[in-house]
Amino acid sequence: MLSKEEISEWFMSLQDSICSALEQEDAKGKFAEDIWIRAEGGGGRTRIIQNGNVIEKGGVLYSAVHGDVPDFLLKDNPTEPAPKNTFYATGVSIVIHPSNPMVPIIHMNVRYFEMSNGVWWFGGGIDLTPHYVAEEDAVFFHSSLKKSCDKHSATYYPDFKKWADDYFFITHRNETRGVGGIFFDKLSQNEFVSKEQLFAFVKEIGNTFAPVYTQIMNRNKLKPFNESNKQWQLLRRGRYVEFNLIYDKGTKFGLESDGRVESILMSLPKTAGWEYDFIPESNSSEEKTLSFLKKDISWVLQ
Amino acid sequence: MLSKEEISEWFMSLQDSICSALEQEDAKGKFAEDIWIRAEGGGGRTRIIQNGNVIEKGGVLYSAVHGDVPDFLLKDNPTEPAPKNTFYATGVSIVIHPSNPMVPIIHMNVRYFEMSNGVWWFGGGIDLTPHYVAEEDAVFFHSSLKKSCDKHSATYYPDFKKWADDYFFITHRNETRGVGGIFFDKLSQNEFVSKEQLFAFVKEIGNTFAPVYTQIMNRNKLKPFNESNKQWQLLRRGRYVEFNLIYDKGTKFGLESDGRVESILMSLPKTAGWEYDFIPESNSSEEKTLSFLKKDISWVLQ
Repeated sequence: MLSKEEISEWFMSLQDSICSALEQEDAKGKFAEDIWIRAEGGGGRTRIIQNGNVIEKGGVLYSAVHGDVPDFLLKDNPTEPAPKNTFYATGVSIVIHPSNPMVPIIHMNVRYFEMSNGVWWFGGGIDLTPHYVAEEDAVFFHSSLKKSCDKHSATYYPDFKKWADDYFFITHRNETRGVGGIFFDKLSQNEFVSKEQLFAFVKEIGNTFAPVYTQIMNRNKLKPFNESNKQWQLLRRGRYVEFNLIYDKGTKFGLESDGRVESILMSLPKTAGWEYDFIPESNSSEEKTLSFLKKDISWVLQ
Repeated sequence: MLSKEEISEWFMSLQDSICSALEQEDAKGKFAEDIWIRAEGGGGRTRIIQNGNVIEKGGVLYSAVHGDVPDFLLKDNPTEPAPKNTFYATGVSIVIHPSNPMVPIIHMNVRYFEMSNGVWWFGGGIDLTPHYVAEEDAVFFHSSLKKSCDKHSATYYPDFKKWADDYFFITHRNETRGVGGIFFDKLSQNEFVSKEQLFAFVKEIGNTFAPVYTQIMNRNKLKPFNESNKQWQLLRRGRYVEFNLIYDKGTKFGLESDGRVESILMSLPKTAGWEYDFIPESNSSEEKTLSFLKKDISWVLQ
């Protein structure tokens, strides 16, 4: 039977392989590591990269924490744990903010959660946030995710793509964070799928990150840009900040559960900006980008 | 009997006088006005100033909106309104982000709320967020607020200063937003105070804003600064963004009640920044500033 230690060790190795691949593609930036210990149990390995050739600021975080199930989780799962039930949570979280506005921001999270009463699940997601939407990148990104999903179940890509559209959504702006990706949560065994099969799927997604994103970096990193592109990047990063601080459940959970603030907020860009009532020029690439920030765009044939 | 129209008109005139005073002290920036209408009733007059001599980005907003009491307000006041109860809310909100990091950010809000069942209250607050805490400014700011409060009640300054310390607090950072000020909410008549007296107090606070902040602008606007001061300003603005998007009740209320997003988020700075695990040098003015971002600092003898 698949143990939490086995899952956690695999996440650690995923952090290693992703950091190597990103450093290689960046060819300048190096990850610096902070090991931290959680007073209530467990800890993590936070790796931050700054001021690279391609990556301006990014983090690839591994953690494995455990302890008593916190009260606010009991509320979410009222039938599940008796008091003194313990939990174990492990995963890898990534956000990469590139300096060139033609290179998209990316995020991935893969995680495993279990409680001492036997309840467990996998969750995760990966989504791409271009400052300027290049359709060929969005198609490549979604095709790659679909290919990885399809190896495990024909329903995963359509279901989890829709879930991502709904999750990575900035309600007050009525726009998606970017071109989406996939999102899934609380995947557990049932009559059709075993824990081992779900873990194989999560590994597949984890392993999809590095080849896909390094290719997207590679395609765009030498593209020229000007001052007005940088200004637009600041505004798009402002939206990213709005999403993460207002809507993102991981961020909220982390801050409310007294998590390690510097690790949680590594997702924020080095700089961001806001301009009152900014409206892009007609037929500009900025306006075109906004037209793609909608739910239910089919980037691949399903 | 004091009417909502009378209160609202006074708020409108307050917006006028504050905009004039700020334009005069800035000596370059001019407010641009957007009139907006709320489909469900009422509207507002949003005034934004950008790229002045002193003020980089700021807003002075007046609004008066009315309609059916929204569901989430019913929850807060379960005993109060029957369905179809209507509300009326009017006020002035200000946030000013200066370009020189030696000039503090300021915020003020004064507001009046009533429901058709006869329930009403005043609320408000004003707080100063220096990028670098200059003790003489903090003392001047708090002394001015105390003087204004003391004309109305000896308990207002100590009570509302403490309320501000608790309200303008970034829990996950364990630091106050700035050097505080005063905050008050749901002030209504009782055996000791009439509606007219409360309105006189709110007017007093409203009228305190312009002379106090223009003096603080004037004192600091010509102070020299360097690139490292600008970097620190970005980080302090990042904290301001964290407060406004995560904790500020007005922002949350506005976004959740489908308010005018560009007016609500005018509080965000033109640029902000985040750096992983930034720790200021020992004995630097940045470190000194952090030492002042605590609750319960007595800036004036009480």
